[in-house]
Parts: sequence; C-alpha cells; structure tokens
Amino acid sequence: MSFESLKSGKRIVVIGGVAAGLSAASKARKLRTDIEILVFEKSGHISYGSCGLPYLISDLIKSPEDLVMHDSKFFKEKRDINVFLYHEVVAIYPAKQSVLVKNLKTGEENEYQYDKLVIATGARTFVPQIKGIEIKGIFTINTLQDGIETKDFIRKNAPKRALIVGAGHIGMEMAEALVMAGMDVTIVARGPDILGTMDEEITKIVEEELGRNNVKLLKSTSVREFIGKNGYVGEAILENNESINTDIVIVCIGMRPNSEIAKEAGIEIDHTGAINVNQRMETNVSGIYSAGDCAMAYHQVLERQVYIPLGTTANKQGKVAGENMAGGDASFKGIVGTSVLKVFDLEVARTGLSEIDAQIEGFNFISNVVEQNSRAHYYPGGSKVRVKLIAEMNTGRLLGAEMVGREGISKRIDVFATAIAAKMTVEDIEDLDLSYAPPFAPVWDPILTAANDLKKKM
Amino acid sequence: MSFESLKSGKRIVVIGGVAAGLSAASKARKLRTDIEILVFEKSGHISYGSCGLPYLISDLIKSPEDLVMHDSKFFKEKRDINVFLYHEVVAIYPAKQSVLVKNLKTGEENEYQYDKLVIATGARTFVPQIKGIEIKGIFTINTLQDGIETKDFIRKNAPKRALIVGAGHIGMEMAEALVMAGMDVTIVARGPDILGTMDEEITKIVEEELGRNNVKLLKSTSVREFIGKNGYVGEAILENNESINTDIVIVCIGMRPNSEIAKEAGIEIDHTGAINVNQRMETNVSGIYSAGDCAMAYHQVLERQVYIPLGTTANKQGKVAGENMAGGDASFKGIVGTSVLKVFDLEVARTGLSEIDAQIEGFNFISNVVEQNSRAHYYPGGSKVRVKLIAEMNTGRLLGAEMVGREGISKRIDVFATAIAAKMTVEDIEDLDLSYAPPFAPVWDPILTAANDLKKKM
Repeated sequence: MSFESLKSGKRIVVIGGVAAGLSAASKARKLRTDIEILVFEKSGHISYGSCGLPYLISDLIKSPEDLVMHDSKFFKEKRDINVFLYHEVVAIYPAKQSVLVKNLKTGEENEYQYDKLVIATGARTFVPQIKGIEIKGIFTINTLQDGIETKDFIRKNAPKRALIVGAGHIGMEMAEALVMAGMDVTIVARGPDILGTMDEEITKIVEEELGRNNVKLLKSTSVREFIGKNGYVGEAILENNESINTDIVIVCIGMRPNSEIAKEAGIEIDHTGAINVNQRMETNVSGIYSAGDCAMAYHQVLERQVYIPLGTTANKQGKVAGENMAGGDASFKGIVGTSVLKVFDLEVARTGLSEIDAQIEGFNFISNVVEQNSRAHYYPGGSKVRVKLIAEMNTGRLLGAEMVGREGISKRIDVFATAIAAKMTVEDIEDLDLSYAPPFAPVWDPILTAANDLKKKM
Repeated sequence: MSFESLKSGKRIVVIGGVAAGLSAASKARKLRTDIEILVFEKSGHISYGSCGLPYLISDLIKSPEDLVMHDSKFFKEKRDINVFLYHEVVAIYPAKQSVLVKNLKTGEENEYQYDKLVIATGARTFVPQIKGIEIKGIFTINTLQDGIETKDFIRKNAPKRALIVGAGHIGMEMAEALVMAGMDVTIVARGPDILGTMDEEITKIVEEELGRNNVKLLKSTSVREFIGKNGYVGEAILENNESINTDIVIVCIGMRPNSEIAKEAGIEIDHTGAINVNQRMETNVSGIYSAGDCAMAYHQVLERQVYIPLGTTANKQGKVAGENMAGGDASFKGIVGTSVLKVFDLEVARTGLSEIDAQIEGFNFISNVVEQNSRAHYYPGGSKVRVKLIAEMNTGRLLGAEMVGREGISKRIDVFATAIAAKMTVEDIEDLDLSYAPPFAPVWDPILTAANDLKKKM
C-alpha cells in the first residue's frame, strides 16, 4: 500500500477505547495537532489495564478505578481526543469511508466519516454453548465491566466454592485470585495439560503449586451442564457425570477476536478469526488499520502473522497504527511469543517456541531442562529456577525458552526474548556477560547454565 | 600462537585455587583424563565465593565454610586434581617449563615441570602507605582469610564504630554489612563521587540510600593517619585534619592484579599491571595462560583488552584457558562491563559504557535518564526504576545502561547486556517483546520506556 499523508482538518476514527485504540489515538495526536480524532467505545470504560482484573477480583486491588489510567475528560482536555462511551460501531462502509455508530444509551444511530480508521475492537472470552451457561453467577473475565460485576457478585453473595473452566493464563491467575478471596477452588481443564502454550516440564511445577494451595485440578474433562439453585449457579455436571457444587463459575477457555464488523465490511480475516494486517498494521482495505487483540501479530521466529492477543502487543501495534494513520512510516517489528504470569508464589514465563510449537512447525530442534539456584548457593532465601531451552539443531539458534521458579523469572525470560530477537545461538547466550552478585544470581546464572548444558548436547 | 595438542601423560600446572584456577583445572580434566593436573594455592582455602565475604561479615552467612563450594579432597577424589594448599609459586621459569613452589608451612622449595601453565593468581586490595596502616583492626576484604579474620575481630572486639576507606562496590557492600552487624558506619571517599564506574544520576540515589541507613559519607577526602588505642585502631585523621573515632577500618580502594611472578618471568604486563592475554587466554609466552583477576579481559564495546576483575569473568576465562590447555580451541568472547550490587534495599547495576567512559573513549553519544514503575501502576508493592542509557549518536547503537531501584534491576540490566552483545540499537530495544504481567512490570517496561525516550532525542 502506498504511503499517503493525511491532510490537515481530516479525521481519524478509532473503534475501541482500551489498549490498542487509545495508543493509536494518542500517538496520532502527538504527531499531528491538525486532525480530528474520534474514539468510539461500546462499554462505559476506557484506558484500563485488563491484565489487572484477577487482582481486582482477589481484592488486592480495591477499586475498579485503580485499574484506569485516564478518563474521557483527560483525553479530551489533555490530548484533544473525543471519546464516545457506550457508542458501538455497528458497521463499517469502506466505500463511503464511514462508520455507523449506535449510541447504546439512546439507541440512536449516526454515520461518521473517516479519513483513516483503526479497528481496535479487542477480543472476547469464548463462551461455550453449555446448558445453563446463562445462569447468574457465571462470569467471564475480559472487560472492566466483567471485573466489576464479578467483584460485586462476590461481595454480595460471598461464594464459598468456585469453579474455573479453563486452565490457561487467566484460569491460573483466577485460581490464585479466588483462593485469596477465600474460596475453595476447582479448575476444569479440557485437555491433559494446563497452560497449553507451555511444555510439561514447566507446567507440572505449576500443577504442584496449585495442589500446594488446595486448588483441585480436574484434567481431560469439561462441563456438560450448569444447574441453578435459587436463581444462581449451584452445580456443574461434568462429561463423566461427576457433579461439582459451586457458588460461582469463571469461564476462561480462550479468546476470540471481535472481528465481525471487519468481516462484514469485506476486510480480510485469518482462519483464527483475527483481522489480517501487515507490519504497518494496515488491513487489506486502504485507509483501514487494525491493532490489538482483534488483529494478527507478526511472529519473528515463525516469520509470519499469528494470533496471540496480549496487552503489550496491543499497545505497540496501536502506536504503529497511530503513527501511520498520522502520515508516518512505522513498522511493528513483531513478537517472539513472550509472556509471564504469577501463580501463587510461582513465576512462570515463556518466550519463542515451546517444544510443542517447534514440533508442529517442523523444526529440527533439540531441547533440555536444567535447574539452577536463583542466588549464590550460600546466600539465604534463594530457590530453584527451572529452565527449558529449545534450539535449532544445525544452527544452534535459540528457538524458545520456558522458565518457572519463585523469583527472578520475569526478567530472566526477557534475556532470552532479547536473544531470540537478535537470532542468537545457544553458544552466543553461554558467552553473555550477565550481572552477578550473591543476592541476585549464582556466578553461573541459570541462563548461562541452561545454554551451556544445551550446547554440550548439540 | 599455533594450536598444539597436549600429549598423554603430560602435566598442567595451575597457580591459584579460587575461581579462574579451579575452573581451568576442572575444564581441562573434563576434556582429558590422561594428563596430570596440579593446583598450587598459597592460602589455606580454595573454591570459595569471595563475592560473599560482605555477607559473611554481616553474619547473614554464619560460617566461612558456607562460602566454600568444594574442598581439596573433592578435587582429588572426584576430579583427580591435586591441590596443594599453603604452596606459593615464587617463580616461573618459561625456558625450563617449570615453576618454583614454596611450601609455606615448611619453607621447603621445589621445582615442578609443566607442559601447560595457567596463572590465576587473582588480585589483592591496594593498601595505601598511610601512617598507622599496620595497626590491628584494619582489614581488607579480598580472600576468605580476610573474611575470617574480620569476622573474628568483630566477634571478639564488638566494634561500635566502623570506618570504610573507599566508596566502590566493596565499600558499598561493606557499609550494608557493618550496619547489619550493628555498627555506626562512616565512608571516606577520595573523589567527589561514590561508585566511580557509574554516573551521578544513579549514584546520587545510592547516596540517599546510605543516608537513609545512617551511613555517614565523607567525600573528596582521604585518611592521612591511623592512630591506635590499646593496641587497636581507635582514630583516623583525615587530610582536612578532621578526626574520626573508629573501632574497625575496612580498606577497599581498589584492586591490583597479582602479576609480579608473571612479570619477573618475562610475561607481558599491561600498564594496569594485569597480565596481557589474547581471547584464547594465552600470554605472550608459549604454553603459559592466564585467567581471572590477574588478567586482562576483552571488552566487546571497546574492542580491546581492559582490566575489570570480576568473578563471572574469572570463571569464564578459566574455562577457556582449561579447554585450550587440554588441547581444545576455545575463545573468551569478552565482557561488556556488566555488574550489579545490593546496597541496603537498593539494587544498582550497570553494563556497557557509562557516560564518563563514553566521554573518555571519545564516542559521539547521547544519553537520557527515565523513571518508570517496576510493576503495573495499580499493583501493590512496586517502586521506581531509574534507567540511564548511553547510545552512539549516529548509529543509535546502545553503548551502555545503568539502573537503580528497589526491585527488578539485576535481570533487567541483563537485557541491556544482551542487547549490547548483539550490537542492538535503541530502536531495536524499543521493539523488544518483553514479558508483561502486573506483578512484574508495567505494560511499557522501564527498558522499553528508556529506549523509546532516547530514540526521540536522536
């Protein structure tokens, strides 16, 4: 697509007022003061950290407002960005360069012209068509509204038993949150493993941590039916006919991109349902961009677009879209698949490809698992860091890393993420000049030990 | 120097039994079971973590044995390495391929042939010729013996006031250690700044932390004379005639390589006093290697050998020397100048070049300082991370990074160390796919914020 500067007095329309949408709007405004920027958000909340929702529900974070960075007034007054709350974009008309917007408070519909448009509609939790799924007390944890309603329900109903459907990142974080909120927690996982994006050498440590915190994990099963009691969820019947009494249910079995309006407008959609974009965050339709959880993201190791919705990616993609809409020439360099989560006292992280990923993608790879201390062996308070590395067999290039431990995981995984971005080999990593002091690492950091051990196997 | 394999039945001699020496011996043994390996150590201790000495003295670590990884028996029985304690190598005879070794217990001297020799004699604390420096109660903190004697003195004499001469890494760690051990601590720093290898935007935060912990810092002065009381140090007179009452003194104003025997043997010595080596850890004399705190180290940013003695470097260099002595072909890839230290509740770290370094080296550079949260703004327990970056003006290549904060510093600096090793630009760093979860980082990690901010200035 050819580069075309946006003329003065023109208008950028942003669909969605969370991470990607507001990053796009803010970046465009920083570059251009001579254009109009409208943001339509269908909910009543903008600019919040949805990754903080489990901590809102655990009550570690007291008020929903704490998760909010800025309000509409801030965007209007400080950035001259017009945010319309409770305004849902119900259709995009590329030929007319306009969007049809419904005011959810009044039902009124209006058409707005745009010169550049960014679709940042995010994703929603996939809700399976289980019998009884509509019963009160069954929640998803995606938007701030979800968080508010769930917290409200807990405060009013004081549930004692909780059932979490899904054992991914949000399932794990919610298990911790609901235990902290005083509940007996059961997780139902469809497959034989939790945290499907990681390998079992890591996830079995997480399973032990769940057990240590009295979280019951039921694997390779799913819920067939929810049964209500006095108008609220009271029981779940599993596929194996087992019955679980519960006072609250959290459904978190995966995300689906909100791409319907894009599809209806003729915008190209990937088989995952996410909106196809290039590294400029352009869709196949001229003048229309997409960013965040509704869009694909370029993966540097796989060298193609993938669907991995994450907050950091949304922010970065939004910035790129904003810069390009404003007439710039930015490129989203891509992801390497980095993520981290806290599960009780564990830090669990990954970057690049897991062994499962590498198999599926047909890489000729080698992997290893090592355990090393988080601190010098003599310094009190240390614990074991488990590292799994996956490297390309012939070249030695690092393909992926996974780590689990009680401290020092989150930023150690970032060393591997940086190494993967730099296409470093295991030998390059072994030679890194990493920081050392007894309170923070052993003289051979787990990163170096893991690389050294894998090199020997090659 | 040409590569020449070591014949079966030949002998490797190692001078020094701490980090570099035993790494060399162990690596050589791993590769070759058909050669003899002798290690001569002049003290009574081997294989200990000297970086742990401040924590031994603070009593966080109770026993000197806790710092020891393995004893001589282990090396003999498990690795067939003969360690001679209290044996000082007093001369090297390259022409005869032998060393003269003095048994410090008996005074007996013996000559030992070698086929390959590695000098891993380490470094010693520089002790200035101050009047009264020989008085009891004045210590250096370098060897395990130093640690034992200092701890012993504290136990027996229960000093109330301590004076630390020198405000580098060890001075800072000792300040924490002696406060933990219950003393009123004063630091005397020769120059106007502490931690001379870092820039003032970082060190002033450290100075505040010293003040918060009631450590008195006297800058731009030095001790002229120590005065004894009842046979022990009791007072220090500064250059400005100020008198400081003290019950114990720690001298830590810098390290000097133990390179005298190398020099006498005609081995090339750098102007810093350290032994010149190439990346194979070979000296200019055939068959003689050097590694660790007595040797130079290749610096990847400066692209030349420098003298920065550190434990991690010693271990890596020792391994390289060991592999090459055993007939291998290893290369020490070099350092980038990474280090970290704990000063009370602060973590302080650096990698690459400081602004001062970059000035001295004549780089055309730009720098910035940013502060960002260590965790998501709404997640409890976070604190500020201060990051200083130094980048090359025209290319944008990262030259150095410094950080200070209360958490998450040590491994964050390693991301920069990795980026420097990969010759990444500030723009490359801004695009890194770093891990994010509210307990561990804000969505824009301080690393990304710092890179983004500096990019804007370029």
